[in-house]
Amino acid sequence: MQEEYSHLTERQLESEQVFNGRLLDVRRDRVRLPDGNECLREYVRHQGAVVVIAELADERLLFVRQYRYPLRRPFLELPAGKIDAGEELLVTGRRELLEETGYLASSWRHLGVMHPCVGYSDERIEIYLARGLTRAAEQTPDSNEFLDLLSLPLGDALAAVQSGAITDAKTITALFWAEKVMRANW
Amino acid sequence: MQEEYSHLTERQLESEQVFNGRLLDVRRDRVRLPDGNECLREYVRHQGAVVVIAELADERLLFVRQYRYPLRRPFLELPAGKIDAGEELLVTGRRELLEETGYLASSWRHLGVMHPCVGYSDERIEIYLARGLTRAAEQTPDSNEFLDLLSLPLGDALAAVQSGAITDAKTITALFWAEKVMRANW
Repeated sequence: MQEEYSHLTERQLESEQVFNGRLLDVRRDRVRLPDGNECLREYVRHQGAVVVIAELADERLLFVRQYRYPLRRPFLELPAGKIDAGEELLVTGRRELLEETGYLASSWRHLGVMHPCVGYSDERIEIYLARGLTRAAEQTPDSNEFLDLLSLPLGDALAAVQSGAITDAKTITALFWAEKVMRANW
Repeated sequence: MQEEYSHLTERQLESEQVFNGRLLDVRRDRVRLPDGNECLREYVRHQGAVVVIAELADERLLFVRQYRYPLRRPFLELPAGKIDAGEELLVTGRRELLEETGYLASSWRHLGVMHPCVGYSDERIEIYLARGLTRAAEQTPDSNEFLDLLSLPLGDALAAVQSGAITDAKTITALFWAEKVMRANW
């Protein structure tokens, strides 16, 4: 694998942390390009996240609406959240589903992984399908998170992608998987 | 719209640029949360990008393989690139397709927009479908870009998502659109 792509591979020469915030860890690395030249690569280091396709008994999917400050507007998204240090993926999935929606799920299936921002972040987002849902509690989001909870049938969610009402890439990617699993038996 | 979501909306109190690199413009803003408390939001400002679903006469789609340094491995992706300042979206699409693949397209259709990273970036990626392709030139990527060019039928690309060979979220999102347009007549 490494050998096969050696004509594409960039090698780290030096790494520097240029910003260390509460959320963002930003690096600037000096790298050796495949042609021998040098170049700087700037990127965000991220602990990874989990997104949950949570299917209710009536086949509706749980969504949250959340204001996304970088874009200055609310987004309709599937429940998701960051992996705490050392946390098992499934624990993250259960925790975020409960915090953001108040639901527990009896069945969890890992579908795949996506990389939202390969050009300037090492973030990965693990995709889970959660079924057997029961309402267990009120939502308990983080103190700086404000969420509306809603549910949509898969068909309405797909139509919301078409109309531009859903544009969040992790949500579209997970809906792509949801449609395959729920309709095409992946 | 604003009124309807006032219980979610965060308002800027102060904005600070905490890193200004060649690629990344990182901000830290002090914001007023819906409950009246204050919070810091860190995020990347990005000029936006265009991704191109380029369909050959035999219905294969053009892909590039590119080493993504943040994740230290090559990714299979649809051709894409950043919007230059003041550039029309269609000009970006044509330029990036030509630079990354050497192809021109006679037909361009805007399908939609996605937001790859709503939690910490304001990037948007505009999705185009390009048809009527002709090979016009050799690839001419930027001096720090190294790309393999390849083509895949849509069915093989969808299978590559299922197998985990394609995990780039903009590519999966665009393939979601491609399948709808090519098979379901969106």
